[in-house]
Amino acid sequence: MNAELIAVGSELLLGQIANTNAQFLSQQLAELGINVYFHTVVGDNAERLQQAVNIAQTRADIIIFTGGLGPTKDDLTKETIAHILNRELVLEEEALRSIEAYYARTKRTMTENNKKQALVLSGSVVLKNDNGMAPGMALTVDDITYILLPGPPKEMNPMFIQYARPFLLGKLKQHERIESRVLRFFGIGESQLETEIEDLLERQSNPTIAPLAGDGEVTLRLTAKHASATEAKKLLDETEQAIVKRVGQYLYGYNEDTLFTKLMEQLNAHKKTIAAAESLTGGRFTAELTAIPGASKAVKGGVVCYTNEVKERVLFIPSEVLETAGAVSEQCAKLLAEHVRNICQADIGISFTGVAGPDLLEGKPAGTVYIGIADGRKTEVHSLSLAGDRETIRTRAIKYGCFAVLKRLAAL
Amino acid sequence: MNAELIAVGSELLLGQIANTNAQFLSQQLAELGINVYFHTVVGDNAERLQQAVNIAQTRADIIIFTGGLGPTKDDLTKETIAHILNRELVLEEEALRSIEAYYARTKRTMTENNKKQALVLSGSVVLKNDNGMAPGMALTVDDITYILLPGPPKEMNPMFIQYARPFLLGKLKQHERIESRVLRFFGIGESQLETEIEDLLERQSNPTIAPLAGDGEVTLRLTAKHASATEAKKLLDETEQAIVKRVGQYLYGYNEDTLFTKLMEQLNAHKKTIAAAESLTGGRFTAELTAIPGASKAVKGGVVCYTNEVKERVLFIPSEVLETAGAVSEQCAKLLAEHVRNICQADIGISFTGVAGPDLLEGKPAGTVYIGIADGRKTEVHSLSLAGDRETIRTRAIKYGCFAVLKRLAAL
Repeated sequence: MNAELIAVGSELLLGQIANTNAQFLSQQLAELGINVYFHTVVGDNAERLQQAVNIAQTRADIIIFTGGLGPTKDDLTKETIAHILNRELVLEEEALRSIEAYYARTKRTMTENNKKQALVLSGSVVLKNDNGMAPGMALTVDDITYILLPGPPKEMNPMFIQYARPFLLGKLKQHERIESRVLRFFGIGESQLETEIEDLLERQSNPTIAPLAGDGEVTLRLTAKHASATEAKKLLDETEQAIVKRVGQYLYGYNEDTLFTKLMEQLNAHKKTIAAAESLTGGRFTAELTAIPGASKAVKGGVVCYTNEVKERVLFIPSEVLETAGAVSEQCAKLLAEHVRNICQADIGISFTGVAGPDLLEGKPAGTVYIGIADGRKTEVHSLSLAGDRETIRTRAIKYGCFAVLKRLAAL
Repeated sequence: MNAELIAVGSELLLGQIANTNAQFLSQQLAELGINVYFHTVVGDNAERLQQAVNIAQTRADIIIFTGGLGPTKDDLTKETIAHILNRELVLEEEALRSIEAYYARTKRTMTENNKKQALVLSGSVVLKNDNGMAPGMALTVDDITYILLPGPPKEMNPMFIQYARPFLLGKLKQHERIESRVLRFFGIGESQLETEIEDLLERQSNPTIAPLAGDGEVTLRLTAKHASATEAKKLLDETEQAIVKRVGQYLYGYNEDTLFTKLMEQLNAHKKTIAAAESLTGGRFTAELTAIPGASKAVKGGVVCYTNEVKERVLFIPSEVLETAGAVSEQCAKLLAEHVRNICQADIGISFTGVAGPDLLEGKPAGTVYIGIADGRKTEVHSLSLAGDRETIRTRAIKYGCFAVLKRLAAL
């Protein structure tokens, strides 16, 4: 079974919004084991929508539409499909009553065009809209299943899960289970990772192994199919073990983990607190950590020592160090980490100093980065040469910092 | 002229990422007056990609591809297009040198598969990649223009603006000039703004006025068409003046301005420095400002006083204040702004304290926010009740802080 997603709406073609509906539905369909081969986006134009449907009919078993079910003249998804399938649009009494109730509840007057939302394709299964007015529809004609969903994600997502997903499950003849797992790596490039596991990638079939790189990280998505969920999980475990044997030292988490949530989790697990002295990164390391609810247990705070004045006055870096070694130096990184740990009374002090660019600083090129980590016993300083623009260098630096603290915690 | 966007990548069909490249390119093409009628997403599969290209060839003058230019076997966009157009792939020496330089700079070993990224379609205009390795390409064959761009937005966006956009401008035959201007507002809701300028919105034609809301801001995009660029600009000026007469006090900038770049610009214009005490916002205010090149002229730094311990020890907030008024109070915000200004020796001190949620803090609900602004003459404290989740509250708070400092600077 394979599916095509057709999003209808000129706002997508004008770039006013991104097609996040396609992302949501693709994830949902992947979990059901339904392959998605194409996404199509088309505007509020009957002729071009018809063209898109005709193409999809030649290549998909399931066509899922989002958008174009609203009250205005622009909304023409069900009208176009009624025309293509030669079906009538009929009034769905229950949907009409719920639209009228919505207007009564919000004390507004219902305009005539809202009744159009209660029209559905004759012979279709009506999918209730618990979060809006326009109902969805599902029907199968000539072995192709058509599912029509509203455009707003807060209506579409729950409608899919509550009503469209069970409809699809009923259609699926085989009950093959799909299990997937994302492995998250840091400190290894995509091409190096692929070289290390080249043979596994080449003979992949079940599970499949899909690499993805971005923002200095690499992920591998493993997807297994099996009649039994337990067996599918076992297939994932085996492949994960084979991968970990090669590149386990770079694996930091799974699925929705980020380096920041992982660091927070491990700080809490070890009952440790952290404070940061941020020159290069200007507060971003602490900002990322404190974006996580409950951060105040592990994050004491920190100092954004963007100027040498603040390094001296707030973090007590001796002016000799700044004048001789410089602010961008191993020595400065070491003292910053130690001092911020002290003044914030944290278990771990971390510091970031370096050159974000575009200009040289203290004669050092953009990408020169020193990260200090102090825990009261010893202070380590990591010296890096990072590539990229200002934002990339800052992002890589804070991620590197997370990864280095995670390693330190793991060694405790 | 009309365009179709083809995004290549199985990660899109699996729902791992949303097709934000299509959104970005659609906006860019709309500004150039090029209609986009379809977006297509296809996986890393040569046969289905070829199918998508063949369909696009029947209906588009310009086909823009994103993704599939990387080093791995999965990356097959240019190979497939070479096959369809019957072109060779040739080694681009400059691209190879820049890939080698990238590896040398980052002190990593270049694996053999990276060389594949330096292959380009023969006869194409090579689009330089200033933020990554794989170059882009543009070529016109049989009246259809093909543009190949890399998938990562950080590489694709600047490549489009810097190199692909000028290429397309050269192709445009029509001589009508399109001029557009975005007006940026803060502190007014979308529906209130639309009500204030309702009559202007109703009789809009040239320029058109398109409102868009997001992240606590509202923008109006004015787009004028005229044979003469000067006349088009004059049309924009007239409409802008009519809008400013109604809602000028909320206008903070134009086009690519953000509240942060605007604040940086105005701090520099007034030769003023700033330092921040961030409790609620955990470093994000300073992180946003220091993301801008040259920030060290205006940003002294700050203290992330996430715990009361740091408020006391580093920012000298008396424990009586924390015990009686509380950390989330007008009094604490006032002292934080004054003290951070002093210890960082800045002209302006700003503080953020409040409840990001989800839990209550000191008995106060999520969204309770105090922002202090001290300049040595007087200290003002803004008391806000913000709605939304943790990240929304933090984002609105730092934007409000920027806007309040901008107002203060404007009054100097």
